[in-house]
Amino acid sequence: MNRTQLFEQIKKKSSYLCVGLDTDVDKIPTHLRSAADPVFEFNKQIIDATIDLCVAYKPNIAFYEALGPKGWESLQKTLEYIPKDVFTIADAKRGDIGNTSALYAKAFFEHMSFDSITVAPYMGEDSVKPFLKFKNKWVILLAHTSNPGADDFQLLQSTGSGKKLYEEVILKSQQWATPDKLMYVVGATQAEKIGGIRVLAPDHFFLVPGIGAQGGDLAQVSKFGMNKQCGLLVNSARNIIYASSDKDFATAAKSEATKVRNEMENLLNSLL
Amino acid sequence: MNRTQLFEQIKKKSSYLCVGLDTDVDKIPTHLRSAADPVFEFNKQIIDATIDLCVAYKPNIAFYEALGPKGWESLQKTLEYIPKDVFTIADAKRGDIGNTSALYAKAFFEHMSFDSITVAPYMGEDSVKPFLKFKNKWVILLAHTSNPGADDFQLLQSTGSGKKLYEEVILKSQQWATPDKLMYVVGATQAEKIGGIRVLAPDHFFLVPGIGAQGGDLAQVSKFGMNKQCGLLVNSARNIIYASSDKDFATAAKSEATKVRNEMENLLNSLL
Repeated sequence: MNRTQLFEQIKKKSSYLCVGLDTDVDKIPTHLRSAADPVFEFNKQIIDATIDLCVAYKPNIAFYEALGPKGWESLQKTLEYIPKDVFTIADAKRGDIGNTSALYAKAFFEHMSFDSITVAPYMGEDSVKPFLKFKNKWVILLAHTSNPGADDFQLLQSTGSGKKLYEEVILKSQQWATPDKLMYVVGATQAEKIGGIRVLAPDHFFLVPGIGAQGGDLAQVSKFGMNKQCGLLVNSARNIIYASSDKDFATAAKSEATKVRNEMENLLNSLL
Repeated sequence: MNRTQLFEQIKKKSSYLCVGLDTDVDKIPTHLRSAADPVFEFNKQIIDATIDLCVAYKPNIAFYEALGPKGWESLQKTLEYIPKDVFTIADAKRGDIGNTSALYAKAFFEHMSFDSITVAPYMGEDSVKPFLKFKNKWVILLAHTSNPGADDFQLLQSTGSGKKLYEEVILKSQQWATPDKLMYVVGATQAEKIGGIRVLAPDHFFLVPGIGAQGGDLAQVSKFGMNKQCGLLVNSARNIIYASSDKDFATAAKSEATKVRNEMENLLNSLL
């Protein structure tokens, strides 16, 4: 999917919601646990319930990898079930030396057909570039994350430029790819910082985790982060997929996703 | 495996060689390709040929992940085939928010029973700590890597401490774990830098990739990097496992591993 198509979907659905498919077997409602593939069955019903309300799905790969080979089968089936006009994100945070990154790219873009993958920047250019060689596939580079440990290294200030590490990541990586191939992960927990990041990367999409359970504020994030093509994919996982732990989990997920989507419609109104 | 046991193995085998099981299906000798599981069959024969010459095996997870669910099965079988007195490293370079890192830890330490995993430091403390909760399991944190892009961010100098990013990683992470749980990835391509890193982390083991195909020099690495408990695991992959692409691949691998091990025996002599 390219940037124009993504923005078309945002306008069509009045939504820039990404639903995080962080599907934990221990949290799947009990009535699904006897299914042949409980993880896929759960995801299928979540997708059916939310497909009109979101523009992206983001499985966090750890949840599937923790289940061994059958977890990868659940992931593959989930991905095949998602219609092609919905953007898919492999939240894998990979990053290795060049020829190894090329293998990860093959795994996520060819073996499975994700539109994008999250990548860690620590190893630099040759760890990122192999992911950029695939047409209409995206790298979503970790910039400023929303977890407690984010400040340990991401806020280190460089003597050369005076920039912080996450700013260096954003500036240097723009030499590697255009906003048609590259997005950034920017945490929602300190919304005002997103404004500063928007100045550094005016045209790039930001994937924003941390809304809901982690405490980020959608209105604030949108105020500081939106650009003329929306430029935001805001992720919510637990608040939606675990809105109920009972038989009504899909209806409850739909209801939560609807609330977020309706707020997004209002926030998009000034833009569209 | 704990640190004392690892050093015992090094003394017993007169070797601190780690064999990288970066098994590429396209490079497996043709006569093995009709096997039920060519990747496992290749690994099995490499392990049989090198088990007396090395103290560790390091599968790079990307090579297995690129093959989908059956790649994970090959990996699991490989791991089960390696005797418990040999140290095993999941070269996965994971790193995510805390509860997700906990899932990766479960995948590599429980579902599979690796002794250690390589972890990327970009997301900070809570992305590393979940791996440290398992008894006799290790985190091997990326510090200064050997790839061309390593300098993009790892050499940024911090205004606060005057330290480079990779030095900050080494110093800060020592607050999270002792040398009994934590090692560092330190590339071999600039051996003299290893001396500086040894000053910052006198007791930690370093996993040193970049010998052989990537151009690092074993004698130099050992001169600058060794401590009283050896403190080094030096990885070689392609030079050993692809020493021949023909039916004699295992014999050729043994021959290459023997050369490295004999050089290591000499280098260890001053220590033992």
